[in-house]
Amino acid sequence: MEHDVNREIDKMKEELIALRRDFHRYPELGWTEMRTSSIIARKLTDLGFDQVLTGDEVVHAKDRMGLPEEDYMEQCYARAQKEEGSNLEFLPRTRGGMTGVIGGLRCGKGPTLALRFDMDALPVKETDSRDHFPNKEGFSSRHDGIMHACGHDCHMAVGLGTAKILAAHRKDLHGTVKFIFQPAEEGVRGASAIVDAGHMDDVDYLLGAHMAGDASTRECAIGVGEWRSLATTKLDADFYGRAAHAGKHPEEGNNALLSAASAVLNLHAIPRVGGAMTRINVGRLIAGAGRNVICDQSHLELEVRGSTSEADEYMERYARRILESSARMHGCHVKISVAGKTCAGRNDPDFTEKIRAALMANSDLRVEPISQNRSLVSEDYATLAEAVQSHGGKSSYLLNIVPTVASLHECNFSPDEAGLMNGVKAFTAAVFALMK
Amino acid sequence: MEHDVNREIDKMKEELIALRRDFHRYPELGWTEMRTSSIIARKLTDLGFDQVLTGDEVVHAKDRMGLPEEDYMEQCYARAQKEEGSNLEFLPRTRGGMTGVIGGLRCGKGPTLALRFDMDALPVKETDSRDHFPNKEGFSSRHDGIMHACGHDCHMAVGLGTAKILAAHRKDLHGTVKFIFQPAEEGVRGASAIVDAGHMDDVDYLLGAHMAGDASTRECAIGVGEWRSLATTKLDADFYGRAAHAGKHPEEGNNALLSAASAVLNLHAIPRVGGAMTRINVGRLIAGAGRNVICDQSHLELEVRGSTSEADEYMERYARRILESSARMHGCHVKISVAGKTCAGRNDPDFTEKIRAALMANSDLRVEPISQNRSLVSEDYATLAEAVQSHGGKSSYLLNIVPTVASLHECNFSPDEAGLMNGVKAFTAAVFALMK
Amino acid sequence: MEHDVNREIDKMKEELIALRRDFHRYPELGWTEMRTSSIIARKLTDLGFDQVLTGDEVVHAKDRMGLPEEDYMEQCYARAQKEEGSNLEFLPRTRGGMTGVIGGLRCGKGPTLALRFDMDALPVKETDSRDHFPNKEGFSSRHDGIMHACGHDCHMAVGLGTAKILAAHRKDLHGTVKFIFQPAEEGVRGASAIVDAGHMDDVDYLLGAHMAGDASTRECAIGVGEWRSLATTKLDADFYGRAAHAGKHPEEGNNALLSAASAVLNLHAIPRVGGAMTRINVGRLIAGAGRNVICDQSHLELEVRGSTSEADEYMERYARRILESSARMHGCHVKISVAGKTCAGRNDPDFTEKIRAALMANSDLRVEPISQNRSLVSEDYATLAEAVQSHGGKSSYLLNIVPTVASLHECNFSPDEAGLMNGVKAFTAAVFALMK
Amino acid sequence: MEHDVNREIDKMKEELIALRRDFHRYPELGWTEMRTSSIIARKLTDLGFDQVLTGDEVVHAKDRMGLPEEDYMEQCYARAQKEEGSNLEFLPRTRGGMTGVIGGLRCGKGPTLALRFDMDALPVKETDSRDHFPNKEGFSSRHDGIMHACGHDCHMAVGLGTAKILAAHRKDLHGTVKFIFQPAEEGVRGASAIVDAGHMDDVDYLLGAHMAGDASTRECAIGVGEWRSLATTKLDADFYGRAAHAGKHPEEGNNALLSAASAVLNLHAIPRVGGAMTRINVGRLIAGAGRNVICDQSHLELEVRGSTSEADEYMERYARRILESSARMHGCHVKISVAGKTCAGRNDPDFTEKIRAALMANSDLRVEPISQNRSLVSEDYATLAEAVQSHGGKSSYLLNIVPTVASLHECNFSPDEAGLMNGVKAFTAAVFALMK
Repeated sequence: MEHDVNREIDKMKEELIALRRDFHRYPELGWTEMRTSSIIARKLTDLGFDQVLTGDEVVHAKDRMGLPEEDYMEQCYARAQKEEGSNLEFLPRTRGGMTGVIGGLRCGKGPTLALRFDMDALPVKETDSRDHFPNKEGFSSRHDGIMHACGHDCHMAVGLGTAKILAAHRKDLHGTVKFIFQPAEEGVRGASAIVDAGHMDDVDYLLGAHMAGDASTRECAIGVGEWRSLATTKLDADFYGRAAHAGKHPEEGNNALLSAASAVLNLHAIPRVGGAMTRINVGRLIAGAGRNVICDQSHLELEVRGSTSEADEYMERYARRILESSARMHGCHVKISVAGKTCAGRNDPDFTEKIRAALMANSDLRVEPISQNRSLVSEDYATLAEAVQSHGGKSSYLLNIVPTVASLHECNFSPDEAGLMNGVKAFTAAVFALMK
Repeated sequence: MEHDVNREIDKMKEELIALRRDFHRYPELGWTEMRTSSIIARKLTDLGFDQVLTGDEVVHAKDRMGLPEEDYMEQCYARAQKEEGSNLEFLPRTRGGMTGVIGGLRCGKGPTLALRFDMDALPVKETDSRDHFPNKEGFSSRHDGIMHACGHDCHMAVGLGTAKILAAHRKDLHGTVKFIFQPAEEGVRGASAIVDAGHMDDVDYLLGAHMAGDASTRECAIGVGEWRSLATTKLDADFYGRAAHAGKHPEEGNNALLSAASAVLNLHAIPRVGGAMTRINVGRLIAGAGRNVICDQSHLELEVRGSTSEADEYMERYARRILESSARMHGCHVKISVAGKTCAGRNDPDFTEKIRAALMANSDLRVEPISQNRSLVSEDYATLAEAVQSHGGKSSYLLNIVPTVASLHECNFSPDEAGLMNGVKAFTAAVFALMK
Repeated sequence: MEHDVNREIDKMKEELIALRRDFHRYPELGWTEMRTSSIIARKLTDLGFDQVLTGDEVVHAKDRMGLPEEDYMEQCYARAQKEEGSNLEFLPRTRGGMTGVIGGLRCGKGPTLALRFDMDALPVKETDSRDHFPNKEGFSSRHDGIMHACGHDCHMAVGLGTAKILAAHRKDLHGTVKFIFQPAEEGVRGASAIVDAGHMDDVDYLLGAHMAGDASTRECAIGVGEWRSLATTKLDADFYGRAAHAGKHPEEGNNALLSAASAVLNLHAIPRVGGAMTRINVGRLIAGAGRNVICDQSHLELEVRGSTSEADEYMERYARRILESSARMHGCHVKISVAGKTCAGRNDPDFTEKIRAALMANSDLRVEPISQNRSLVSEDYATLAEAVQSHGGKSSYLLNIVPTVASLHECNFSPDEAGLMNGVKAFTAAVFALMK
Repeated sequence: MEHDVNREIDKMKEELIALRRDFHRYPELGWTEMRTSSIIARKLTDLGFDQVLTGDEVVHAKDRMGLPEEDYMEQCYARAQKEEGSNLEFLPRTRGGMTGVIGGLRCGKGPTLALRFDMDALPVKETDSRDHFPNKEGFSSRHDGIMHACGHDCHMAVGLGTAKILAAHRKDLHGTVKFIFQPAEEGVRGASAIVDAGHMDDVDYLLGAHMAGDASTRECAIGVGEWRSLATTKLDADFYGRAAHAGKHPEEGNNALLSAASAVLNLHAIPRVGGAMTRINVGRLIAGAGRNVICDQSHLELEVRGSTSEADEYMERYARRILESSARMHGCHVKISVAGKTCAGRNDPDFTEKIRAALMANSDLRVEPISQNRSLVSEDYATLAEAVQSHGGKSSYLLNIVPTVASLHECNFSPDEAGLMNGVKAFTAAVFALMK
């Protein structure tokens, strides 16, 4: 990569910051990234992308996991229609939760390389502390109880910045670059639908990144190396029983709360797995109407994880058996739905080494290896990566580490905006190395 | 009792029905019977009662069990201030949940007799079926989600009707009649505070009644006899643990949902009691924030019952031990609060026989014995009765059975308004027999 | 009944005591009453009974519940063959647990009346206290760990005494008297097989009795009245899973101990029943081979009870569902077998009144009513009674109450032998009243 | 090491095999290695060892974990006194479970090096298959239900063989060699007492080995490398409640089986640990006397493990809290005792490399690295190693891998006796390298 490209990126500083702050102001939860999608589609189109997919071109409606209530999505759509600066040409494509954008930049013959950026925010109420950077600079969330507390606002700014640079240099590149702006990464709900729609079928190389790390990070150094993520399955279970008066005829009830309680204890007691690491958590339980009525309905939200996809499958299978048996035990039945799912993720070593070399060669970037103990999380990216790797493609996930006041998912999370330029430089350097 | 008194009561028909329908239109939950109390206080004052107690003269604030949230009570107060016909002189006495009215009618030397009427409505959404009598007659609930589905509207109309008759005939009576309009009967929350305030200390005779029975009742016949009710204790338990990321560091959490689930199973497994009937139900459980976080807070609502107060005490003691041990087991702690409590109730046989004779002698009333299988419910009245019986007083609880379309607590509950006149006649006949 | 008959019975005193002490010396557990059966069959034959049924004439092998291990039964047979005074003519009929004797005494035309006496002892080690009456008199148990601690030795002596008297007076009687010496009453295992073999089909009247009460009894008074007993079902459950090394591959196991533990908690949490009294107890659990192996086999022994047969059925059905679901939950399967079962028992009131009158008329006997609080036990007699009552026959169960040092099933149980004469007098008086 | 020494060892073949077969014939469980200890003490004495410690010189009585019943130990002593070839001079030192032998060979100034060999057999019934090598050669177990199924018979033969060689070459060595024949390795019960007695305080180098691997091993190759073992704690828990009749007065009981069942479920539900691997297993549960009695006593055997000692401590602490809370929950109390405990084990890398070099230099031995997936077991050796490492000493544990028909702990386990010579050669080579 030419030295000049880094300088071009440096000049984009104000633009990148402005993009990021705009997204930060209007955070949207998974499958409601409607305003966000409309703006991204507009920008990619304006940059001269050959193909800009939106709505049902990105995912098929039925493939979406962990969808919010219809009502909520309709409220979000109404919100996006008013005074938030959505692009009203593309907005209607997103109605009913059809979010996400895929942009194709064709640069002649050559491999297909995909870059993935996630879009959704979190149900976190942003702090009102005066010290909080978005408060000082006046770009804190306008959506009460929702916040870009996982840095996806930065990811999208990096994506759009990279798109602009590559579009400007398309004549120097070969092959096709596919920009995947993925909805509903939180809860690992969105990637699977993108795979199902076939968007990974022609991808030779896949790159993704998480911009910010935890609060202990001191320097801006891009993490490249042996990244791994846990496979995970998110399940919702609804038990249905029969209500009865707890004083007069308790035996006429079928106690959905007893079924749930028995399930919780037994779920946590699923055996450890010999050759792998596993996790189980029932994180939420809502049951019953009143203390003098045998509970006829209960709702559980749980997740399992595994350091291998097989271990995750074992956990899911066992969990389903427990849920069904716990229901039957007290004469109830249970409806189980998958609210999210991704496989175990891993970087291809040789490919990652190639990326590392490209980044090291770039005088603007500091690079550091990825340590093993970062591997106790799950990333929806793994589902895209597995799809690419399954037909021989290569994948690498970068940690674009920048200092931040608080850790991911916290109400005062605030990454150093210097990461925006580093992110664009890193992706650009990698693409140049792979497609020149 | 003179035959003429029954005729006087017959003439009150329209007035009783109007009173009942007014209460039905504006139902108020336990400890928010503010409009209701203000109207009753006004009426008793206008009838020339010697003493009309309200606010902290009825109960001490700290003695109230199962109080709603402050905010909710303030909303209810604001509601009562506007356009609902509250009596604005007495209303301020009820602010902050200081509801209930006690009226004293002194008729010279003689015993003190108390009559108890309950005031609160239920969190039931009234049916919008066109067949529902209150809908046809245009007096259905104006408070969405709240309904007089337990007949307390009728009880109060009977109480006020009886007050009017007795006030008119006070020269024919000896002793004192105390009208107790009790708040928060549902959930057995109010009687105990009335006892604690000393209102039962001078009571020689206590009478209470429930106007309507279940949907299988065919005739208007007053039930007199071997009434019994279950002792019960209502507990709320809040478990506090520590949150942690379910993927990264599950061991750093203290799982309040596991504590709750273990408590639920073990609570339902409390042994049966040899010489008594018992009940246990955890009717509600709310726990956790999200599936990927170790739950740090859970809330349980439960009740125990016993056919004897000793059996209820056994159940409560055992339940508390389970709650505390389940908390400790997973490194949590638990806060247990009593949301309601009443003892086992029973009628004094000789006294009840006297009441029965008085009612039988009244040509207007049909009387039937109370069957044993009605005894599987609890009644806050039992707490008042026990206080009276503990110092040698006598108590009897009547079932003033009238036909109804649906059973108690159902959204289309609708008792025959003929019960209003029967109720006034029954209480009047009993008072005349005891105090003439 | 003639005065003279009571005198005859008084003269049998030594004989009755000798019979009882002989049975006491050689107690035999349920389905191993081999020596006992052989002696009874001999005696009835010698008394000139028209029919003496033994072995498979009494019960069909396959109908027996709660059978001991084959080996144990063979050891018992060997024991009975040697030096214990068995009758070697009848003994071979009992081999393999084919115990029980039914004797028929035909006295011409008339109704069929059955008298039931139980035979088995308990797995209780008799005390070696010098104060214990059998020790003082030298007739304590010769079978280590087995004891007639429930008075069945007395019951059989009464049965044989009654047989002798009735045989002597058969010319004064009409109809048929059937003496049922029932095996395996403990654990309610034997009556059902006797019913299945048809022995109740022709019975018009059934009488049974328990000779001794609890240690608080002060006088010899025969209890006649509103006797009731609980229905009960005894279940054995064996869970089968798969073993695995708990360190290396816990996930390869199917944990039969987890299934059992989950079953235990949920079994005890089966709801109370509105209109009836119920019981549940898992009294025994044996599981696992070693601490470092996932348990592949566990064994539960439990019982349910109900004050009505319907309540018992509810409990059994629910218990089976829990056992099966708990097994499936952890990938195990379960084998459930019925180790005993009897229905709820009740006396026919008119018939009981007739018996009461007969006993009252007998100047030698004191009679007292049966109090309700004796009704928290189960009796295999109820199964015989129900069979008789189901075709219109009548049943009454007497409590032939005598003082005893310790309560039933205790190691120093020792009833007053005066009860032997009272028992014979009571049965004889009842038979004379019904069949004269 | 001189080439000649390997030849000397080859000449010991018959002697090593005879030793091993003698031990195999008379296997003894942990803390009953009485015959075994007496023979080893005799041999070391005869070899001219400077110090031969036995009885309370090896361990203090009170420090022993997981001791068998007194009666059983006395039976074992009686057995060892008769016809089994014990050495009757040393045998009395072992009475009451005071087993183990430590032999010291002083070779002048220099470091102290300890070699550890374990002695106890397993409660496994040896197969009677004709194909089983010990059956063919006539040296199968004479102690029914006990078998050297973990190769400790071979370990001891190797130990004695090494002792003989080193004693013969003591003039070529410097420093002191300490031979530790450790009792009760199974269940990790013995090492801790040896440490407590101070025997590791002066040890600079520690070596141990397990002779045979699993049935998939094909070649005789000594494993040297990154060995790791799990920390583990073995707990016994006895719950004490109160018995009661399950029909009459279930509420009078304190159900020790319910406490146990609740403990089992919650124990298995202890959270996974973020940075480590853990294990939990309740492998055995014995509870109750009969189905109609509330259980008053239950016994649990469990173990926890951790890939770090901290993780094991976390599991133990949590398990104790669950056991205590489960007891209290149902009004019981619990007695918890430690039946075994060892820490996590690891080899010192530099020291291990030195051993590897010494073995590689020995032309008779094949060496292979140790793979990570062997690390899911626990070894009492770790306790000795930690004691040595805690004061700066070095430790390495070898896998002296030989083919075997069946895996460790199986009834037809039978390692290739060629391992005996290899074992002696390996230890001898290591000692020569370290102490020459």
